[in-house]
Amino acid sequence: MPNSRIALDVMGGDAAPGALLEGALLATKREKDALTPDRILLVGDEAAIDSWFAQNGGNPGFSIQHASQCIEMHESPAKALRAKRDSSIGGCVKAIRAGQAGALVCMGNTGACVGASTLGLGTLEGVRRPGIAITLRMTGHPVTMLDMGANIASKPEHLLQYGVMGSIFMRDMLSVNDARVGLLNIGEEPTKGTDLCKDSHALLAESGLNFVGNVEGPDIFQGAADVIVTDGYTGNITLKLMEGLSGFLMKQVVKELQAQGAESAGDVISALQRNTDYSEYGGALLLGVNGTVVIGHGRSDATAVSNAIDLAARALKAQVNTHIVEGCAAFASDRETKS
Amino acid sequence: MPNSRIALDVMGGDAAPGALLEGALLATKREKDALTPDRILLVGDEAAIDSWFAQNGGNPGFSIQHASQCIEMHESPAKALRAKRDSSIGGCVKAIRAGQAGALVCMGNTGACVGASTLGLGTLEGVRRPGIAITLRMTGHPVTMLDMGANIASKPEHLLQYGVMGSIFMRDMLSVNDARVGLLNIGEEPTKGTDLCKDSHALLAESGLNFVGNVEGPDIFQGAADVIVTDGYTGNITLKLMEGLSGFLMKQVVKELQAQGAESAGDVISALQRNTDYSEYGGALLLGVNGTVVIGHGRSDATAVSNAIDLAARALKAQVNTHIVEGCAAFASDRETKS
Repeated sequence: MPNSRIALDVMGGDAAPGALLEGALLATKREKDALTPDRILLVGDEAAIDSWFAQNGGNPGFSIQHASQCIEMHESPAKALRAKRDSSIGGCVKAIRAGQAGALVCMGNTGACVGASTLGLGTLEGVRRPGIAITLRMTGHPVTMLDMGANIASKPEHLLQYGVMGSIFMRDMLSVNDARVGLLNIGEEPTKGTDLCKDSHALLAESGLNFVGNVEGPDIFQGAADVIVTDGYTGNITLKLMEGLSGFLMKQVVKELQAQGAESAGDVISALQRNTDYSEYGGALLLGVNGTVVIGHGRSDATAVSNAIDLAARALKAQVNTHIVEGCAAFASDRETKS
Repeated sequence: MPNSRIALDVMGGDAAPGALLEGALLATKREKDALTPDRILLVGDEAAIDSWFAQNGGNPGFSIQHASQCIEMHESPAKALRAKRDSSIGGCVKAIRAGQAGALVCMGNTGACVGASTLGLGTLEGVRRPGIAITLRMTGHPVTMLDMGANIASKPEHLLQYGVMGSIFMRDMLSVNDARVGLLNIGEEPTKGTDLCKDSHALLAESGLNFVGNVEGPDIFQGAADVIVTDGYTGNITLKLMEGLSGFLMKQVVKELQAQGAESAGDVISALQRNTDYSEYGGALLLGVNGTVVIGHGRSDATAVSNAIDLAARALKAQVNTHIVEGCAAFASDRETKS
């Protein structure tokens, strides 16, 4: 059993360290599943953390692990990880390696978090490549998509495992049993798409997963599948496009409403934004690494941080990683090739 | 000079042949650039066409080229093109080959249209692969993206030519000179993304095009580039995602507005839909084939059909294809490999 403590990178994110520390406090005050302060390990600049608590009612009992450096949002992940050996995200990974924590939560540079976690923690037994899983909740029923950007050079065997990991996540975390798995593609027929699509379709179809075939853009929003698998390049393009387009359209809606003198514009938009912003629900999980890793948006506020901590706590409690190891062993295919 | 007549596939699309024939009529009655009926060749079931005109005021002088078959929206393009030798889309292509038309307009099965056009017309001299170019106008200034799905197995040389063709299209059709060309990717740095991205970035950077580097989802809606190039798989995923997400969000906006008792919901939505629906502006151009090919949405109404016919007429008049041949010759690179 992994340590149940959660290492929080308090230096990452647009509003660090304030929003992170406030989020940690919120996580100890939740109505449901509040964590005791000893469940959260703060990783970052100790002086900055102490100073923040001095001005905000004191540290209620969080342990602090000092890290002297921080990888900024704009930095190249690979370069920064090499140059900054004492970064806060690196400290979180070290805490898991040392058995001081079982999970980490990071709102900082996503690439650096994926890189540090993948290299530092390695993959779970039997898992070939980790994948970033993001759960969209816009439609009223959750849809988990992966990989949203961890693994650019995906192979069919990776996509099969994304289907396995996504299904386990849906069952363990969202009570969706026998999740319907779809393959993001550009047409319905099994022969559509790139070679990766065709080979993945064949592998998924014979896998024993509840595979529902190819899904296209509109299907995502029409409940055609519970888990949608794709390669990390396409997934990341998809993710950023959704962010860009929904942000743009929401602005247009506000403009139109204001132009027409509607008074409720603000309310409408807040309601919609709550429904379209995945960080409301705690961020993304990097599934497949040997540790529980939650990645949030750089712009996360204290509530989002507290949701991310809660997500990490629930993933630990549900033993998602144990089930992933079991699942990937059960779904190991004869057709696997060296990756 | 190609024939200036436009072959219209009147059997393709959800509301065929009515919406197509009504669209042809509208094209002859435009306030600006109205076409005489002899500029439009109707391709499809002659009896159905005659019967429609008998009930709708008579045929004002359109020529009809009979085609006994129609490829339905749901059919597999490759199979259908083999099985239906007398299809209406095939008839349009034949008309261009025979010099009876210089352009075709199709609202039917996109795959069949791309397949029939590419095989039947071939590519323009020097063009390696055709690409579907779609112009988004949501943001107030046009952004042309290609390839949106013609060429799944794209190579760097194809993406370079998409940059060339897109720039020529922007100059000839939309008066945007020296268009800023961006590469759809998952990060800013030249080393980001797939091998195709990296190699395409290098080729575009040294091409002499006005290359502005990688663009990500939000950049599309922030005016970072006038032309955005990508492979046909990613482009098609992107296109369908934009359709699916904007359709879904618009529905949510209506729901929220109605829930809050706003009376102007309908107006707001119509205004937004006009701005987000590319078929309002005439559909997509299949750039690079030896003929002018306009592909519209299956759900196109008569107005969209008439806009598509107008787009074809303007592309012929602007000699886009002649300029593409010149452009691709000028941008031919030493680094080209056999494709």
